[in-house]
Amino acid sequence: MPRLSLVVLVGFLCCASPVSATPAGAPVSPATQECLDCHSAVHPGIVADWKNSRHAVVSPHMAMQVQGLGRKLSSKQVPDTLRTTAVGCAECHSLRPEAHADTFEHNGHQIHMVVSPDDCVVCHVAERTEYADNIMSAAHGNLADNALYNELERSILGKSRREGGKIQFDPPDPMTQAESCYYCHGTRLSLAGTEQRDTDMGELEFPIIKGWPNQGVGRINLDGSQGACSSCHTRHHFSIEMARKPHTCKECHAGPDVPAYKVYSASKHGNIFSSKQSQWRFDPVPWTIGRDFSAPTCAACHISLVVDSNGEVISHRSHRMSDRLGMRIFGLVYAHAQPLSPDTTRIRNAAGMPLPTDLDGTPAARFLIDADEIKSRRATMQRTCLACHGTSWTRTHFERLDNTIATTDQQVRTATQLMQRIWQKKWAHGPDRGGSPFDEYIERRWSDAWLLYANNTRFVSAMGGGGDYGVFEDGRYHLSKTIMEMQDWLQMREAR
Amino acid sequence: MPRLSLVVLVGFLCCASPVSATPAGAPVSPATQECLDCHSAVHPGIVADWKNSRHAVVSPHMAMQVQGLGRKLSSKQVPDTLRTTAVGCAECHSLRPEAHADTFEHNGHQIHMVVSPDDCVVCHVAERTEYADNIMSAAHGNLADNALYNELERSILGKSRREGGKIQFDPPDPMTQAESCYYCHGTRLSLAGTEQRDTDMGELEFPIIKGWPNQGVGRINLDGSQGACSSCHTRHHFSIEMARKPHTCKECHAGPDVPAYKVYSASKHGNIFSSKQSQWRFDPVPWTIGRDFSAPTCAACHISLVVDSNGEVISHRSHRMSDRLGMRIFGLVYAHAQPLSPDTTRIRNAAGMPLPTDLDGTPAARFLIDADEIKSRRATMQRTCLACHGTSWTRTHFERLDNTIATTDQQVRTATQLMQRIWQKKWAHGPDRGGSPFDEYIERRWSDAWLLYANNTRFVSAMGGGGDYGVFEDGRYHLSKTIMEMQDWLQMREAR
Amino acid sequence: MPRLSLVVLVGFLCCASPVSATPAGAPVSPATQECLDCHSAVHPGIVADWKNSRHAVVSPHMAMQVQGLGRKLSSKQVPDTLRTTAVGCAECHSLRPEAHADTFEHNGHQIHMVVSPDDCVVCHVAERTEYADNIMSAAHGNLADNALYNELERSILGKSRREGGKIQFDPPDPMTQAESCYYCHGTRLSLAGTEQRDTDMGELEFPIIKGWPNQGVGRINLDGSQGACSSCHTRHHFSIEMARKPHTCKECHAGPDVPAYKVYSASKHGNIFSSKQSQWRFDPVPWTIGRDFSAPTCAACHISLVVDSNGEVISHRSHRMSDRLGMRIFGLVYAHAQPLSPDTTRIRNAAGMPLPTDLDGTPAARFLIDADEIKSRRATMQRTCLACHGTSWTRTHFERLDNTIATTDQQVRTATQLMQRIWQKKWAHGPDRGGSPFDEYIERRWSDAWLLYANNTRFVSAMGGGGDYGVFEDGRYHLSKTIMEMQDWLQMREAR
Repeated sequence: MPRLSLVVLVGFLCCASPVSATPAGAPVSPATQECLDCHSAVHPGIVADWKNSRHAVVSPHMAMQVQGLGRKLSSKQVPDTLRTTAVGCAECHSLRPEAHADTFEHNGHQIHMVVSPDDCVVCHVAERTEYADNIMSAAHGNLADNALYNELERSILGKSRREGGKIQFDPPDPMTQAESCYYCHGTRLSLAGTEQRDTDMGELEFPIIKGWPNQGVGRINLDGSQGACSSCHTRHHFSIEMARKPHTCKECHAGPDVPAYKVYSASKHGNIFSSKQSQWRFDPVPWTIGRDFSAPTCAACHISLVVDSNGEVISHRSHRMSDRLGMRIFGLVYAHAQPLSPDTTRIRNAAGMPLPTDLDGTPAARFLIDADEIKSRRATMQRTCLACHGTSWTRTHFERLDNTIATTDQQVRTATQLMQRIWQKKWAHGPDRGGSPFDEYIERRWSDAWLLYANNTRFVSAMGGGGDYGVFEDGRYHLSKTIMEMQDWLQMREAR
Repeated sequence: MPRLSLVVLVGFLCCASPVSATPAGAPVSPATQECLDCHSAVHPGIVADWKNSRHAVVSPHMAMQVQGLGRKLSSKQVPDTLRTTAVGCAECHSLRPEAHADTFEHNGHQIHMVVSPDDCVVCHVAERTEYADNIMSAAHGNLADNALYNELERSILGKSRREGGKIQFDPPDPMTQAESCYYCHGTRLSLAGTEQRDTDMGELEFPIIKGWPNQGVGRINLDGSQGACSSCHTRHHFSIEMARKPHTCKECHAGPDVPAYKVYSASKHGNIFSSKQSQWRFDPVPWTIGRDFSAPTCAACHISLVVDSNGEVISHRSHRMSDRLGMRIFGLVYAHAQPLSPDTTRIRNAAGMPLPTDLDGTPAARFLIDADEIKSRRATMQRTCLACHGTSWTRTHFERLDNTIATTDQQVRTATQLMQRIWQKKWAHGPDRGGSPFDEYIERRWSDAWLLYANNTRFVSAMGGGGDYGVFEDGRYHLSKTIMEMQDWLQMREAR
Repeated sequence: MPRLSLVVLVGFLCCASPVSATPAGAPVSPATQECLDCHSAVHPGIVADWKNSRHAVVSPHMAMQVQGLGRKLSSKQVPDTLRTTAVGCAECHSLRPEAHADTFEHNGHQIHMVVSPDDCVVCHVAERTEYADNIMSAAHGNLADNALYNELERSILGKSRREGGKIQFDPPDPMTQAESCYYCHGTRLSLAGTEQRDTDMGELEFPIIKGWPNQGVGRINLDGSQGACSSCHTRHHFSIEMARKPHTCKECHAGPDVPAYKVYSASKHGNIFSSKQSQWRFDPVPWTIGRDFSAPTCAACHISLVVDSNGEVISHRSHRMSDRLGMRIFGLVYAHAQPLSPDTTRIRNAAGMPLPTDLDGTPAARFLIDADEIKSRRATMQRTCLACHGTSWTRTHFERLDNTIATTDQQVRTATQLMQRIWQKKWAHGPDRGGSPFDEYIERRWSDAWLLYANNTRFVSAMGGGGDYGVFEDGRYHLSKTIMEMQDWLQMREAR
């Protein structure tokens, strides 16, 4: 039974061995071999990761032989120089040396440390193009170039001092920013010079990069491009398996402002994933519902190419993740339709503020997608739902979400009216008198309402169809309590 | 070596393949085959789930051949029409058509969408009978028919408005209820008419069901029965493995009011589960301690049939989950003995309120089990403990739990006394003057004390024997802080 | 193909079978066999755990044959009486009967219930010696013998009463202590007498041990030793796999005061662990980076013997966990250099308080390690980082951590200045007038700042390099909010 046993052996090795011997695959280029000769000892973890990756065994030429839905390399053409070798150190880190400000001479090679989407585009043109239209690629500027958000950031990250009976917040320093908001949004990288370092291989010169390390989704790279593919396709393993597992998304979608992972893990979908994932397959392309997995992960609903057991496409792959999203349930300060452009710095509400809604909830409609587009994107999303759920189930799920958007927005409206009355009464120094709307206690309670609790409630509705987390874990219980506290605070001062 | 290799292959396929080819099993009935002919394409995920289920390969007749502890089908008789085929679509969804208000004509069959415990009872009579005595089956009415709980619900879920200098909460709307409290407690399903839908298979008519979708444990079904087996035995996979894994329980026992999963995951039991589960077996019946698993999950302590390695029964299976529970550590507002009846709406305390204790903690004893029954249920639970723990370990564990019940109740008493003084002083509009006890800030702080922090502290004691979570994560640190804040709030007003 | 199939079968059994038949290993001693004869029935879970352990199959003699990095038994000599049998019940539970206060006569053997590090030292001398220098071994006394910490403990754990218009907290009772702070810190065990018990084996006498059960890291044992190896090497499985998995650490490093697990699970390292752990190996000694695992767990950075794929040592094993730690980011009330001695009760700040810093943040330097030692310990830690990260990445990571220590300390300083002003103004009864600094609401808010939010922010920086949790999940958002609330509280009273 040679054939059977071989199948078993191969299957077994795939399962059991994290670092199996590299199968006969694409040859390693001489330049990459040179890198490996030193770096295997210097950074064994990086090299091991790469050796376990698909990039180490498949050349672009081999990848281009795959036709149909299974194809992972979306570019039509790959330069001859890169076509026939494995995608190794040199292939990526010495690509387009003139484009990267951090390119440096390293043992006879022109190397750059930070690989960017404009390097990856050589093979993955569709993904890179879609991602450029993804709001995540603009995450750095959308925060850094919005004066109002800067104000919120200062009141959270800035060092405080008590002066003249008041608390003052300094502007945040770059290192705090890099490990707070911009950890996920992405830092702006810039070259700050070079340094000599005494290494195991002798004295060598390296670039000094401000903002590094960072893997944020909207990182401004040293070639001017935006984004970091490594946010989700982690470092040298570039794994589709990891990108499809919800843990990857958790790195940024974790806290009570965007509690996606937490909500998922307590939802029925997440509970099936937790219970059954060891029996699923996370790397087939396309990804077959029912055969490879039996409940969606984040990627299944938002990104992946998903097919049914006949190979019929249920959802097309898209790295422009808003393709399946109608409403933006992350309130600023109210939920709103998805922005038309990934660059949200252009948005102004009726009062001229850089917000997608007025303080009474009226949308800044000309910057947002319209009702037809919402409907069309929802229909795209619902195709995945319908693979496992009936029509009425799916429809009601979204009706409930719309209702939750409306009710949480109403709660935010009540909180905002309380806040406006407090500003008007001069019990807090608000924007009507040139003050920050974010740097006093009662203002922070107001931001709790929309930034934490209303968001959390909507995430629970959208991703879990409801549940305990939408009430007691940063949900409606806390949203209503915040309103009660603001009222209590106001009443205490009105009674004085 | 054909035999050995075959064993390996079968074993390997079981492990590696989520959707292996269906082994030769029970035949599919013609009616079910008709369903599959369309629904394989329409809802591939549902069909794939079912094909991976035990129901797809075992007929009731086959299940009835199993004698002894391994038997899963508890009914003595199964109707001839159902006995010899796999338990497929038609077998469940066309059972007792006259009993289900949502029965509709569908391609020549009388189909109902919502399968209920009174359908499952055909094969699983013991489980269905026990579950009817389980407080979870009464979860809908226990909330919906308690005027005091409704008041709390309104203050959490109701939309708020500021009117006349006060915050008013509207009664909650049904869609918010369905995705909040009743997501877990279960909605009341009712038929609201029918609709025509243009489907891939042409124009078809479907029932419109209010309250759908819902998988809450006390769902009121369209045949009048209470409960949803699918709460834990998820949908078309009906998996015992999933029901035994703690993720399933997490779906409802998640937030700080009932933090069972969170507490478990940080306990020694949970830590062993997380570390070792990949080497355990979750589907054998009976479930052998030491051989199949080495630390309990929720199910092992509360539900499952657990035996030792000699096959001696340690605990009998019970879907009446309070069989092993003496005290109800979920405070209302104090911890109390388990209710005598699953229907808790009959309970009245000395003051006539629908609560199991007075506001000073005195139990409404005639509605609750007595000390002997507590002792007896504890002894049942402790048999599982003793499989891995000595007598003194086990005894002290429960002594500490009793002590924690007493100390957290004392903290709740202090908070309640503060609340009563505040009501008496008219600084909040309390029930003594016809007001809601839940809709003002300081009242919400009072409910934080008993609904979140005292509960959490008791869960940590009961399920983990203590630990960090019982102090700093919604535990004693926060319980004492709440008392301090109530005192501070009161003092501020008294000093005025 | 007999060889191939055998390999497959063995591999498969290792993977699939939690309790495979014990391979031919070390013989069980007659004394242990006597224990097993009864206890297999009495405590099947314990016996099954042990049978699955390495101790059940390897004798000290066999373990001593291993030379080099793979050696697990660090003692040079093991007494003849223990050398050639498996390490069973009798080997540990009847060791040094004269040393253990709980030794009792049990069916002709002198047995003690609580095995201590001074029993384990027989084989594991290096680990036991290192652990004695580990601050964790002193965790009981460091809390119990610090009057200031006792005060904090009382305000958290003590039962409260309202008396004379004030809230009084009783001293905490021992059972509450045992399941709160001392659950992790370790209880003090003491013999409280003996009792007769009617068992399945007839009437037997057992010791009564106060403080039992407990597996805290600084437990004071009945032989006077400190610590419990079973805190991490859980009970009778003694597993290196479990100790290397982060779930074990979670049992104590969980809540917002020391949120190590939570922060790890949302970090890139944790996300790789969650996604890839099923393909890793957790029991090889030494532990090879890249081959056995591709991202660190807690143990990889803090304890384990880690080598590269050439077997070169990256980090030496150490059970003195501060070997790789320069700063103590757990603020008391500020972050500070690691203490010189594991016994921190000797520490006094300039004001004579048992704190490692003054209330303005000045360190009690003569009790803490100096800058050179910090640098040297960091270098040790960084060797692990450098296996996967470049020099500039690693250096900047620690620069950012230092910056975060400075900025969070500044926030704590602002909070402390507010607190001091409040005490000075007599709006809280502080230590300047002989009061507790912890038992009033505004004081608790002050402790929130340093005990929860500053700590959390630093953990996120140290273990994750930043991210959402450092801002919104008990991080900077809440730290700044606490300062705002303290200011608001103060201002309200100043305006009166």
